[in-house]
Amino acid sequence: MSTFEKLSINTATIKKASLAEALDLSVAAGLRHIGLWRDKVAEVGLETAVEMVKASGLQVSSLCRGGFLTAADAEGQAAALADNKAAILEAKALGTTEIIMVVGGLPDFSVSPGAVDRAAAGAGAGDGDGGEASAVVGGKDIVLARQRVAERLAELVPFALEHGVRLVLEPLHPMYAADRAVLSTLGQALDLAAPHPVAAVGVVVDTFHVWWDPYLQQQIARAGAEGRIASYQVCDFNVPIAADALLSRGFMGDGVIDFSSIGAWVAEAGYNGVVEVEIFNEDIWNLPYAEVVDTVKARYAELVEPHLGA
Amino acid sequence: MSTFEKLSINTATIKKASLAEALDLSVAAGLRHIGLWRDKVAEVGLETAVEMVKASGLQVSSLCRGGFLTAADAEGQAAALADNKAAILEAKALGTTEIIMVVGGLPDFSVSPGAVDRAAAGAGAGDGDGGEASAVVGGKDIVLARQRVAERLAELVPFALEHGVRLVLEPLHPMYAADRAVLSTLGQALDLAAPHPVAAVGVVVDTFHVWWDPYLQQQIARAGAEGRIASYQVCDFNVPIAADALLSRGFMGDGVIDFSSIGAWVAEAGYNGVVEVEIFNEDIWNLPYAEVVDTVKARYAELVEPHLGA
Repeated sequence: MSTFEKLSINTATIKKASLAEALDLSVAAGLRHIGLWRDKVAEVGLETAVEMVKASGLQVSSLCRGGFLTAADAEGQAAALADNKAAILEAKALGTTEIIMVVGGLPDFSVSPGAVDRAAAGAGAGDGDGGEASAVVGGKDIVLARQRVAERLAELVPFALEHGVRLVLEPLHPMYAADRAVLSTLGQALDLAAPHPVAAVGVVVDTFHVWWDPYLQQQIARAGAEGRIASYQVCDFNVPIAADALLSRGFMGDGVIDFSSIGAWVAEAGYNGVVEVEIFNEDIWNLPYAEVVDTVKARYAELVEPHLGA
Repeated sequence: MSTFEKLSINTATIKKASLAEALDLSVAAGLRHIGLWRDKVAEVGLETAVEMVKASGLQVSSLCRGGFLTAADAEGQAAALADNKAAILEAKALGTTEIIMVVGGLPDFSVSPGAVDRAAAGAGAGDGDGGEASAVVGGKDIVLARQRVAERLAELVPFALEHGVRLVLEPLHPMYAADRAVLSTLGQALDLAAPHPVAAVGVVVDTFHVWWDPYLQQQIARAGAEGRIASYQVCDFNVPIAADALLSRGFMGDGVIDFSSIGAWVAEAGYNGVVEVEIFNEDIWNLPYAEVVDTVKARYAELVEPHLGA
């Protein structure tokens, strides 16, 4: 098997590239997979995107993202369900079984689903004033917000099962608990998944979000034993944290993460699927795309692939 | 009992005030306690500080900080033990039983004990280049770093017991796991404390660090049941996160934290001791000290005190 058999580069890593460019780059790099964000699909329209992916010969490893399930009002909840059903159908059309779910933040502070970064989020979302401008009852109650996630998830499961798409819960680093995801640890994600069939709800292990977790080894083993690991995503955690905390991801090797331990734990847990590289980083977004792809491949070959087992 | 009976303002909240000013401000505000950082004590010398505290009539609620126990080399480990023994003796002299322990980050990335903020940390610590300049074997291995914390803690316990001072483990927000504390959750702190007598090792519940924890209610209850809660510290978590992530603390009410839930959990766990307010925030540091104290009192009376029980 070649070194890059399992490697998939997510379009967020080369955020400024078009879908066509991203597909071409992955093919030229000898990769077999690609991770897609919905904004890239929307730029050309779903039908065209499906044709382009087919023509490329690449397999879509995951579609990012569904989620944002914490709305406290009926209108917001209905909109979230509609958007997630659309995402499930898009995933199916694009030939992937995995839709990554970022569950949303506290109702008073959460950014909107389409917002990759703060600039894209626009006024009133994540600018720190939202709390006063649009305060809702219980808007800071994280226990309640988590209950709503569980309720919306249960509502989506039958639709996901019907279409053969798995809702992949992504625990996000706790520094995003207010504005992006009240789902903060792998253990919490597994507890949230527990009532639902394995075919309907999975989890993603993203090194950036979970590397610090004192119970990570146990929870990865549990995720494997429960058949929930749907994806392994890698990038580094840069320190000092970037001025915009969302953009503190780095190439593997540039930050603080020990990929040998986590990779070994994931392999021991029985996961041997695709490894996706998803990096939000302003400096990396400004590099020539081919240079980004080359660096990802080099770092992956040096720091990640050797620990994944056979 | 007066509203401010339990309130203690930590000198880090009015970082630019001298020890004399901080003591005067707390007395003028009608408080009975004060939280001290060691840098303020060092500015006047321990003996003088002890006299000043005595003259003020205030009780020192805690001394901050000991810790930084993750050094991988014998020299660094010996230095850490010596510094922590000194801190224990300082606490005893100042009449407090509580020394707050920030356990340190990954050896390649940890700031030094005296560094309150990045500016104070200076070159080579927390500037992101330290990793390359001074890489040590296993410098990114967080499991190993945590083992070393447990080993150093065990070495310090007899000295702490002998002097009647409690080592108060502070779990820090996971965004500081690399550069300040590999101790990241209250549950992990309780596991670390478990082998040791309650009189020697406690934990602090600091809202800024733990508000996001999906298992916070259970772990606070456990901390109470195990007799480990040594301090309750409050301040808010501001979003967006400040450009220097260390300084993203805010006055209660300015951020995302629901103080009613956490306060009730702490009260239900049986804690009815001092509540310390410790805020690192550049804007707050630049306000007139008296204005800071007034705002802390107002927010405490409105958002914190009503939930603490009798």
